Amino acid sequence: MSWLGLDFGSTNLKAALFKNNTLYKKIGKIDFTEPLPDDLKDEFDSVLVSSSKSEGTTNALIGGLQLNKKIITVSDILTSEDVCVHDYGEPAFGEDRRLYFLAMKNMISDNNFGVISFGTVCTLSVWTKDTFYGGNLFPGRTSIYKTLGRATSLPEIEPNVEMSFGRGSSCVSSVRSGIDMGWIAMIKELKSLYDSELDNITWFVTGGDYNCVANHIKDECVNEPDLLWKGMEALISKI
Amino acid sequence: MSWLGLDFGSTNLKAALFKNNTLYKKIGKIDFTEPLPDDLKDEFDSVLVSSSKSEGTTNALIGGLQLNKKIITVSDILTSEDVCVHDYGEPAFGEDRRLYFLAMKNMISDNNFGVISFGTVCTLSVWTKDTFYGGNLFPGRTSIYKTLGRATSLPEIEPNVEMSFGRGSSCVSSVRSGIDMGWIAMIKELKSLYDSELDNITWFVTGGDYNCVANHIKDECVNEPDLLWKGMEALISKI
Repeated sequence: MSWLGLDFGSTNLKAALFKNNTLYKKIGKIDFTEPLPDDLKDEFDSVLVSSSKSEGTTNALIGGLQLNKKIITVSDILTSEDVCVHDYGEPAFGEDRRLYFLAMKNMISDNNFGVISFGTVCTLSVWTKDTFYGGNLFPGRTSIYKTLGRATSLPEIEPNVEMSFGRGSSCVSSVRSGIDMGWIAMIKELKSLYDSELDNITWFVTGGDYNCVANHIKDECVNEPDLLWKGMEALISKI
Repeated sequence: MSWLGLDFGSTNLKAALFKNNTLYKKIGKIDFTEPLPDDLKDEFDSVLVSSSKSEGTTNALIGGLQLNKKIITVSDILTSEDVCVHDYGEPAFGEDRRLYFLAMKNMISDNNFGVISFGTVCTLSVWTKDTFYGGNLFPGRTSIYKTLGRATSLPEIEPNVEMSFGRGSSCVSSVRSGIDMGWIAMIKELKSLYDSELDNITWFVTGGDYNCVANHIKDECVNEPDLLWKGMEALISKI
């Protein structure tokens, strides 16, 4: 059985192919405004979808891809309770975060583990002894840069790969170091809350913006860019 | 001579009346989509404008108020150099921040002083021995809440007056504590950069969102909600 994995994030759609219950090929970003190319369609039997968008939006976007295959969403087969998250309320615990749990459980035997995902929206999720301990959501770095452009008459400033530190001496340098230093502080503060309450949390990090914070938190975290795909691997092997 | 002071922030227009070089009455928020009421127009001879918007937008908004009085902008009479800010580049050092400098200079004799302004956009500005030492810009608390609503399919969550702390156990509590704890950490990190580099900075804080952070930084800062109007007072007395 071969699968196409789709990951609808807030900004991008990413895809990967799975064969024999194993991640076979990462396809990367794909265009969700056009039908999927025929040669790619020939490579899989079924589709597994993880989405951070609403059900309606997800269905509309999947419709546009014209897949004509069997489609399963993560929620269809993996509930919040399956990943030890109870009474979370609405909107439900994210499908991406459910997959992170499966992936981490497959990789480690530690009691306490957590993951910080750096995307358009960042999520932090911590489990202790197989129970969801708590988490946070906060904006991604690029989202904060865009916020300043939207809210003000300031020119829109794009984030650099290199983080900016130190006092600003111009408008642009004041924005860059303000956001970059502030965002790192935000991450460290949230992470330290859990480190102060639980012993020896094994931390994973994933998501596109990890590279720019790597120097600041790398010693304390395991970087796993494919954490979501590894969760799909684990899920597919159970179907 | 009597003046109407106008403060065009990113979101609101606020007004105050000045008589005999003194703040006479704070009018609060006024509607910038309609002509100024006649009874208010009778109370002043001239208008002093501080704006964080572009010159074109500011002029258009002032036009809509139909003031028919002499109008002076802060930039007309107070340059960046007048407030000891050199080589700042474009966009120029904000008119609000220039007024903060005048107000602080009038109130204290300390060598090192700074101000954090909590608005739609937050600004941090530090002077040492009458030279601009550096500053930062970062998003206000409400702006960050709006960012998450815009960037995602999450329901838009309004900030509470009370800050949220601790691990989140639901989507809403995860967003609230993520943003609130993160935003406080952002402020403290930026402030501490300057405290680590300069001795005995006298810190002022101003702006609507000060109340919600007051408990977390109050011992270290002088709260002055009228800092901008006090800067206008100082400027008007020099005209």
